Amino acid sequence: MKDVHALPPAEGGFRLLEVGIADVRKPLTVQRRDRVVTLTVTFAVSVDLPASRKGSDLSRNAELLAEVVDATVTRPVASLESACSEIARSLLARHRYATASRVRARAEYFLPRGVSPDRESLEDFVLLATARAERGAAGAVRVVREVGTEAVGLTACPCAMENVRDQLTADYPLLKDPSLADLPLVTHNQRNRTRLTLELEEGVDVEADRMIEAIEAAQSSPTYAILKRGDEARVVVDAHRHPRFVEDVLRALLASLGARFSDLPDSVRVRAETVSEESIHKYNVVAAHEATLGELRANPGG
Amino acid sequence: MKDVHALPPAEGGFRLLEVGIADVRKPLTVQRRDRVVTLTVTFAVSVDLPASRKGSDLSRNAELLAEVVDATVTRPVASLESACSEIARSLLARHRYATASRVRARAEYFLPRGVSPDRESLEDFVLLATARAERGAAGAVRVVREVGTEAVGLTACPCAMENVRDQLTADYPLLKDPSLADLPLVTHNQRNRTRLTLELEEGVDVEADRMIEAIEAAQSSPTYAILKRGDEARVVVDAHRHPRFVEDVLRALLASLGARFSDLPDSVRVRAETVSEESIHKYNVVAAHEATLGELRANPGG
Amino acid sequence: MKDVHALPPAEGGFRLLEVGIADVRKPLTVQRRDRVVTLTVTFAVSVDLPASRKGSDLSRNAELLAEVVDATVTRPVASLESACSEIARSLLARHRYATASRVRARAEYFLPRGVSPDRESLEDFVLLATARAERGAAGAVRVVREVGTEAVGLTACPCAMENVRDQLTADYPLLKDPSLADLPLVTHNQRNRTRLTLELEEGVDVEADRMIEAIEAAQSSPTYAILKRGDEARVVVDAHRHPRFVEDVLRALLASLGARFSDLPDSVRVRAETVSEESIHKYNVVAAHEATLGELRANPGG
Amino acid sequence: MKDVHALPPAEGGFRLLEVGIADVRKPLTVQRRDRVVTLTVTFAVSVDLPASRKGSDLSRNAELLAEVVDATVTRPVASLESACSEIARSLLARHRYATASRVRARAEYFLPRGVSPDRESLEDFVLLATARAERGAAGAVRVVREVGTEAVGLTACPCAMENVRDQLTADYPLLKDPSLADLPLVTHNQRNRTRLTLELEEGVDVEADRMIEAIEAAQSSPTYAILKRGDEARVVVDAHRHPRFVEDVLRALLASLGARFSDLPDSVRVRAETVSEESIHKYNVVAAHEATLGELRANPGG
Repeated sequence: MKDVHALPPAEGGFRLLEVGIADVRKPLTVQRRDRVVTLTVTFAVSVDLPASRKGSDLSRNAELLAEVVDATVTRPVASLESACSEIARSLLARHRYATASRVRARAEYFLPRGVSPDRESLEDFVLLATARAERGAAGAVRVVREVGTEAVGLTACPCAMENVRDQLTADYPLLKDPSLADLPLVTHNQRNRTRLTLELEEGVDVEADRMIEAIEAAQSSPTYAILKRGDEARVVVDAHRHPRFVEDVLRALLASLGARFSDLPDSVRVRAETVSEESIHKYNVVAAHEATLGELRANPGG
Repeated sequence: MKDVHALPPAEGGFRLLEVGIADVRKPLTVQRRDRVVTLTVTFAVSVDLPASRKGSDLSRNAELLAEVVDATVTRPVASLESACSEIARSLLARHRYATASRVRARAEYFLPRGVSPDRESLEDFVLLATARAERGAAGAVRVVREVGTEAVGLTACPCAMENVRDQLTADYPLLKDPSLADLPLVTHNQRNRTRLTLELEEGVDVEADRMIEAIEAAQSSPTYAILKRGDEARVVVDAHRHPRFVEDVLRALLASLGARFSDLPDSVRVRAETVSEESIHKYNVVAAHEATLGELRANPGG
Repeated sequence: MKDVHALPPAEGGFRLLEVGIADVRKPLTVQRRDRVVTLTVTFAVSVDLPASRKGSDLSRNAELLAEVVDATVTRPVASLESACSEIARSLLARHRYATASRVRARAEYFLPRGVSPDRESLEDFVLLATARAERGAAGAVRVVREVGTEAVGLTACPCAMENVRDQLTADYPLLKDPSLADLPLVTHNQRNRTRLTLELEEGVDVEADRMIEAIEAAQSSPTYAILKRGDEARVVVDAHRHPRFVEDVLRALLASLGARFSDLPDSVRVRAETVSEESIHKYNVVAAHEATLGELRANPGG
Repeated sequence: MKDVHALPPAEGGFRLLEVGIADVRKPLTVQRRDRVVTLTVTFAVSVDLPASRKGSDLSRNAELLAEVVDATVTRPVASLESACSEIARSLLARHRYATASRVRARAEYFLPRGVSPDRESLEDFVLLATARAERGAAGAVRVVREVGTEAVGLTACPCAMENVRDQLTADYPLLKDPSLADLPLVTHNQRNRTRLTLELEEGVDVEADRMIEAIEAAQSSPTYAILKRGDEARVVVDAHRHPRFVEDVLRALLASLGARFSDLPDSVRVRAETVSEESIHKYNVVAAHEATLGELRANPGG
């Protein structure tokens, strides 16, 4: 059978950075400390293509995903990112002509959350993982990974609260009473979605659950599926005692990472972004930053 | 050239209710009272198919859309729904074998909004239109249309506010002072998206802008693109003086329609649905209802 | 604590058809014949609301989902639709003021597929389920369910193939040779997504895998994740030996149901829709139909 | 009124790279050579935030968008990217504390397309634009822009076609006849979406329509809204005479740019990516590359 992919390209004889398959949906079984969970993952996997070849052998990518991912039904992997690393390495093994590979994965992930043990339920978060493998001198392969998480929480606006105080005080002079000085006042609050990504050298691992906890701690409040009337009021008051702009969420998150992840080296690259789906606007408010863990640690505010 | 569509079907010789093309994107130019606006519309158009034919002549649908919609660049139509009616009728004229046609359209729509004239900007809403044409006895064609609008606003929860009052009063006894009885207190508030649809006989028209106004009046507050600090506080306080569940939004909207649309007959079918993207939950809260305008008018609360 | 939901509504004292929570994401563990699978499900659950009440006790919906769905981690349910039935019944038990409830669910679902045993991999399909419960006389609750599946396949256009034959014959007179009469010729082919839904009385069950098989048999060909060069050519030739319009796919599917589901009664309501994401157009081609199984069986072509 | 944004941050006193508003929908009126078109644009605009400030004055972003974009109703701009440049500059003028700004925009865009003048209709493409402004020494502002376009076309697989030839020749020996040597044979074909982005210094302009033409020329065939039977066959045959992998599409596109855009300098950075929504798989096939125009010109195949 003719190997059309191995022919020289008709036009543009140059190396292409990435050729692969994307939007591949797969169930992946992961062994967590205390339980086995099945993630529904969207994978994109690719390798580079030398100038000499017309096409990449893409059926190898689909075969590889079937072998590595489908097999986890009976033999769970340690984590989404470890599966990505394994796939990135195997891609280079199967595409002998390739010098680099990339695997990207996104999955929903469920963790128990609740304001009290009798209010717990499984709530949804997002896991992200990327692995890039490069074939170095003497065939040695080096893999760099990114681990990411997303969590939804609540933010209450600190600015509107201050200005509401000014306005309401005109109508309610009693608000000037010192005993009401820290009474939380009405403001707009909204659904906030924050993403944290860490770029890690091989051999350095990080627990996604800890990353999710870091995000939740930086928002005005986590959100919960089950809130009975009293709970709801407590969550609302608590969130309004911690009003936060997207800027505050991002800085609080980034400032906390140095100590929270004291086990991680300074070289770890951090990316964070946060979106507040404003309740008083039809558009969203966003903030994003990128730095190394070392830079964040060096910072006086960090 | 062989007309494969006109052949008898290989299997299942029965009439099909709908065959057509969908996700057709088109710019449509509309003449509003005071200005010409261009809508970017997504169309789906279909006709039924008799048992005797293998296929529908779908290129006629694309031709028809090109003729009717593209022509509005130089000759604007009166409204999205009038364009849909015209297309529905023309579909029956071109598909002689069809007995019914359906056109569905969705477009973004911009209206000026602002807390004051110097804060005005164009904000985005959604227009929906459907036209169903039926070929009756003696070839007479009857068209029924639906006109829909969606608007984003803000809702503040009335329940959490009451329970917050109970909880805060324990910490701030001064809140019991009668002068603070109607002080709006913190609660959760969120982005709310509400849709209103009216089913109209031909000859009965309704102005989409009035439908959008009806929705905005039923939410705790409209939302605005431009809010300077003082504005923001006023919108927040105003919304918290009108706390509303999704149930309240829906009932307030439906109860207002009888009088707001006094020009419309009792037979008009009304559908309404509302979604609050909860700030304290990761999920949404929804309510939906359906009734005739006559039923809503008959209602004591309406 | 004040029960704001139980107050009478401020405006519009009429019953609302549906109030609930939507876009709730949950992992659901299902016991299949030969294996346990975890589905990531999106739930929407609602009940009606009497004219006398301001609001629905929505926290009960979230609690119920947590109890029923989260518990399947250790105690798998039989199917997505049986979980929906149980939730619909329990909603009525907890919302004593409600007369009807509705549960809607959508999940991705994986089945092994392959052109041969050594090419098998898990491929993605969609499961849909709805359960509506109504409180009848003497408190008896009746549940009606819908079970739906979606499958992606390939369609090749029969019309273009015939017209290509005419055109190519001018350039290649040899194509008139009788030995080439059934040579499959080039046409456009595309990704097709077809959905089949069956509405079932309680006590009547249907296996989702059989519904998916019915869809795949109606398309020009199933699609496969792993296709080595020879496989790919065989799938392509096979699909072009079964060229099908969306109309053909829909009729072939509907015509096959009577016999395929000979265990189901005539009263079962069937809905089917199919979308071909055209390769030669930027828009999609669609067909939809609705009938009872009895009507389909009565049909001569069925 | 208290300016909460101007306060020092509570935590993490470091500069943030980006703070802004996103998903802002606006109609933008553009003066093309021969006509005025209205684009419905999604904008994201942001500036950086110094370590000394708690928050960014986001209402200025919304005001600025209202001023610049809403004004185009009566005073059209030259292009989406020129509007982005103006907004990026104005952001720096209004946020005196900022050193950099970024504007991103995405819009649908319609151009007439047809296999012949009597088959023309408006078809949908995508326009993308980005402008990044930086405040340099002595207050000079430098803006770098990206202009992008997306176009949908058709790709036919060259590999399957060759292997189909091998398989069919066994059944149809006449296919070995030299007169049928270049008979296009069945293969899988699919919807392909390709994006091209050029990064430009200020003062260097490029016409989006030419970028769209470059993409269409690189696919196996453009797609068309209106295709009568004869047209459809011609498009299908033409596409099968130019079978192309995603790799071929990308290389053909990149190789053509040097000559097509001979007016652009070597320093222009080019990014291209292409997605084929495979008809024989449930997943997509992708390729991506990045280079300067100079590198592409230097290439022997370019």
